[in-house]
Amino acid sequence: MSAVTFSVTGMTCEHCVASVTEEVQEIAGVTDVRVDLATGSVSVTSDQPLSEADVKAAVEEAGYRLA
Amino acid sequence: MSAVTFSVTGMTCEHCVASVTEEVQEIAGVTDVRVDLATGSVSVTSDQPLSEADVKAAVEEAGYRLA
Repeated sequence: MSAVTFSVTGMTCEHCVASVTEEVQEIAGVTDVRVDLATGSVSVTSDQPLSEADVKAAVEEAGYRLA
Repeated sequence: MSAVTFSVTGMTCEHCVASVTEEVQEIAGVTDVRVDLATGSVSVTSDQPLSEADVKAAVEEAGYRLA
């Protein structure tokens, strides 16, 4: 199991948090996603090695960007 | 038919716009809702007299406030 924290820019409200959470949760192996709106930090827990490219793609699919 | 414009505070992104639009559209008689995110203006067109109390309730249901 691993936990990695990313920085995401552009999230302004709880809807943004929900969108990012939903997309990142769909990545294979991800078991938990915690987003802190105030800081833009997105902590991802997964039970298999996490690809930053997958996280980047998920965040962009939601309409945001990795910092 | 009437068109009235309200000011709404707290909308920060297109998700907020969608939430406000959805709730206001549910008011009886409303035929069109246009939201300008940059200014917070919400223009409501309706085919029957529009109650500001109904608009206020819809905006608050979406999680925002009339200015």
